[in-house]
Amino acid sequence: MKNKQIVLAKRPRGVVEEDDFRIVETEVPALADGQVLTRVHYLSLDPYMRGRMEESKSYAAPQALGEVMIGGTVAEVIESKNARFSPGDFVVGMAGWQQYQVSDGAGLRKIDVSVIPPSAYLGSVGMPGVTAWYGLTQIGRPQSGETVVVTAAAGAVGSVVGQLAKLRGCRAVGVAGGKAKCQLVMDEFGFDACVDYKSESFKDDFRAATPKGVDVVFENVGGAVFDASLARMNAFGRIALCGVIAGYSGQSIAMQNVRSLLVNRVLLQGFIVAEHMEFWPQALAELSQRVAAKRIRYRETVAQGLENAPRAFIGLLEGKNVGKQLVKLV
Amino acid sequence: MKNKQIVLAKRPRGVVEEDDFRIVETEVPALADGQVLTRVHYLSLDPYMRGRMEESKSYAAPQALGEVMIGGTVAEVIESKNARFSPGDFVVGMAGWQQYQVSDGAGLRKIDVSVIPPSAYLGSVGMPGVTAWYGLTQIGRPQSGETVVVTAAAGAVGSVVGQLAKLRGCRAVGVAGGKAKCQLVMDEFGFDACVDYKSESFKDDFRAATPKGVDVVFENVGGAVFDASLARMNAFGRIALCGVIAGYSGQSIAMQNVRSLLVNRVLLQGFIVAEHMEFWPQALAELSQRVAAKRIRYRETVAQGLENAPRAFIGLLEGKNVGKQLVKLV
Repeated sequence: MKNKQIVLAKRPRGVVEEDDFRIVETEVPALADGQVLTRVHYLSLDPYMRGRMEESKSYAAPQALGEVMIGGTVAEVIESKNARFSPGDFVVGMAGWQQYQVSDGAGLRKIDVSVIPPSAYLGSVGMPGVTAWYGLTQIGRPQSGETVVVTAAAGAVGSVVGQLAKLRGCRAVGVAGGKAKCQLVMDEFGFDACVDYKSESFKDDFRAATPKGVDVVFENVGGAVFDASLARMNAFGRIALCGVIAGYSGQSIAMQNVRSLLVNRVLLQGFIVAEHMEFWPQALAELSQRVAAKRIRYRETVAQGLENAPRAFIGLLEGKNVGKQLVKLV
Repeated sequence: MKNKQIVLAKRPRGVVEEDDFRIVETEVPALADGQVLTRVHYLSLDPYMRGRMEESKSYAAPQALGEVMIGGTVAEVIESKNARFSPGDFVVGMAGWQQYQVSDGAGLRKIDVSVIPPSAYLGSVGMPGVTAWYGLTQIGRPQSGETVVVTAAAGAVGSVVGQLAKLRGCRAVGVAGGKAKCQLVMDEFGFDACVDYKSESFKDDFRAATPKGVDVVFENVGGAVFDASLARMNAFGRIALCGVIAGYSGQSIAMQNVRSLLVNRVLLQGFIVAEHMEFWPQALAELSQRVAAKRIRYRETVAQGLENAPRAFIGLLEGKNVGKQLVKLV
């Protein structure tokens, strides 16, 4: 049986391009005892992958050249020599950008797809959802009545942050690119306001959307929008620093409001949700309950076919997706 | 009796100038019951005063125009109708930029000048010392063997930070302006290394001085030097953000390493020591013991006469002082 895979062909110079990737075809090996063969249904595309493509020091080892691109997946067990798994089981894992994976089952977690659809386990009820939950509740610690600002608010993480903030009695203010995304953030995800960072009136709009200043920032983007948030911080504000897309391509960022961190005695904490596994059960319990009850809604942008993963990933970095960016393989 | 005072004449536009201040002369009023008259011996000049000169939102109300500039002082009681104070007592207070103060004694703390000289109560055994102690021990939380970077290392706060770090078994790396200051930081204050930020080879020198990266940053300056520290942060680094002199005059700062805050899961906390009064007794106990035992050394730059306070303050902002900047009035 043939297995199509996408490997990292070379490291990007600045902007990611399609020929940084290469598609290869390998044979699926026969199963040894204890192993399980899964077929990937959905591949998750996430901004952190951009960091892995760099050779420079990061929180994880860089993605090796010539190896299958890493990534979260939902897959179906199609053959098993492992007592824990049976054909037909759905599992979340890290199979990466490929059609099939043979593993010893160590990184696989069985999921119940009877109430919540499989793809949601890569979004609101998966790593992005837990990221939102952890950063908001453990770093942001919002109090009822406070103002929570979320960048990339239409994205997989941001949309959950705002909905969790609303459920805690906060004013949720999103920042997103373009009118359509902002409308979605307000209408579908229930934010109180959403500001278009592409608009010429962004600074004024942002000020108008945060009449009582900003208590909590959940930062997914960095750059000029982050700087604007700093200018609106209230005393003792908290910043959960989750992503810095704006800095990925190496450009320097002109910051005017670094002083606000001092003046307002701000706490800023960079974090990676994978280092806080002890919170996952609590987070997933709330998230799955809220999603099942439709108190947390989500959107997905789904590319079709493995060969379209590079293009979809580049689109994600450019903000072309709405909600969770997935690639559907089956 | 005449009292010379310096008042804020106008708010600075960018760089502080001498004519932002004005000297005035008033009559010292007669004492009412419960009041005490003090004569200022030493006036403390501190970077935070620059922030107070602005009208913009800050952690404290702006310094009012036409009123005596605020500032910490060591003064001698020369007349008292308050049972707590007798002529000859030395007190630390906030008399501001003037020769005499009449007060009800509420803000005055008696000090023992028999072992530690009066001026030290404005430096190592005063607000700057406690600032160093709080930021290092409560935010930086350095472990033995870690590398602690301190900017403005020859200053009143920075010099204490490095010495406290050394006493805790850390590698103390200072950043200061000019060879002479760097030599002082190493020879007099015992830092392991000190890097001259004015040198063309600053980035290389900084890298060489931090061979194991940076675990704790005590930041007094901001700007390009802060950015350089970010580039060297180790995972789970801590940044005590104490001062941002570099941003005071409104220029924007080109930051290249904001992403490091995320990649290294850095904790950054802005703080103002006056909001943590509960730590002062513990901090002053260690500081006064260390200073008396000469385990913490200090330097002072002393301007003579109240009328020279504005020039000395401008020099402080330009980094012309070494150690604690004082004005001696008596």
